[in-house]
Amino acid sequence: MSLENILSFARSLLEKVVKPGDIVIDATIGNGHDTYFLAKLVEDTGHVYGFDIQENALHETKKLLSSKKLLHRATLFHTGHEHVLDVIPGDEHRHIKTAIFNLGYLPKGDKSVITKPETTIIAVHKLLENMASGGVIILVVYYGHEGGIIERDALLRYTTSLDQKEYHVLKYSFINQINNPPFIIAIEKRGNH
Amino acid sequence: MSLENILSFARSLLEKVVKPGDIVIDATIGNGHDTYFLAKLVEDTGHVYGFDIQENALHETKKLLSSKKLLHRATLFHTGHEHVLDVIPGDEHRHIKTAIFNLGYLPKGDKSVITKPETTIIAVHKLLENMASGGVIILVVYYGHEGGIIERDALLRYTTSLDQKEYHVLKYSFINQINNPPFIIAIEKRGNH
Repeated sequence: MSLENILSFARSLLEKVVKPGDIVIDATIGNGHDTYFLAKLVEDTGHVYGFDIQENALHETKKLLSSKKLLHRATLFHTGHEHVLDVIPGDEHRHIKTAIFNLGYLPKGDKSVITKPETTIIAVHKLLENMASGGVIILVVYYGHEGGIIERDALLRYTTSLDQKEYHVLKYSFINQINNPPFIIAIEKRGNH
Repeated sequence: MSLENILSFARSLLEKVVKPGDIVIDATIGNGHDTYFLAKLVEDTGHVYGFDIQENALHETKKLLSSKKLLHRATLFHTGHEHVLDVIPGDEHRHIKTAIFNLGYLPKGDKSVITKPETTIIAVHKLLENMASGGVIILVVYYGHEGGIIERDALLRYTTSLDQKEYHVLKYSFINQINNPPFIIAIEKRGNH
């Protein structure tokens, strides 16, 4: 397939953006697949900070990273991603290269536990203000659940209003699929060049 | 820049899809830049068919291809792309691998000469029905001119309605830019695998 699907496009972007030694964030660790993917990319000189409000997500992710002998490359927080800058050391903020958010609910998890537009936007806003120039935030937006449309529309309103002089905002979506297919919003913080 | 801009994304897709020996189409040759790009990709065993309703576009493109010694890899037609299958040999239809359309008007050309939604959709429809599985059509949609919004909306209606079992339809757009920025619709014909 020549057109990359949503997950493949997200992974390609991460591979393009993240270099060994980078500070990166998995804002919704879920089953830990992205955390593991990021831990490989940053190598031993970089670090992944992971966030989830569900205990089980941290448990599964620790298990996965341990089995791959990569647990030392990650720090996992049992807290919401809106606290991202409070728990990451201040001197590392300017080195944050990417953050990925999988928005909606945890597959196979408790479907009543969903991400909320307010906290998502707070987290994205804080990261954009503080992260490295050239850094990229990837939002994978699932919206088929209750409240999903509200979150989707709030995110689109917020990201569409970002100043084009400071940020590139790309929407990557398959427009002929039924059943509320996920799509990607990717935000790049422009440099001074 | 990690997020590819519109032109760069179109070129990357062409590079991914087109192999030496392929039959490919530049549906709106304009100044010939895509024709030249495609002529390089298909090499001496493939062929580019180019279409434009403006004499000057053919003239400029011939000049460009000649200067690069690649004129033998292309056949240029001074006719609209809705006639695409009438002028390409029938036994080659199933081998068409890609077609690129730059929709709107020719930069630096006569701004009253614009592509029309009816003929664009006829051309896209015929190509999709007849081209190779795995083939990709790329529409670069400029809509800042008079009549542009009508063409844009007609194309979005048409492509959104394509059956997802037969086609993937991707929209690639920067959503925080003012002044009607161009966007891409890419359609991949799915195979039987």
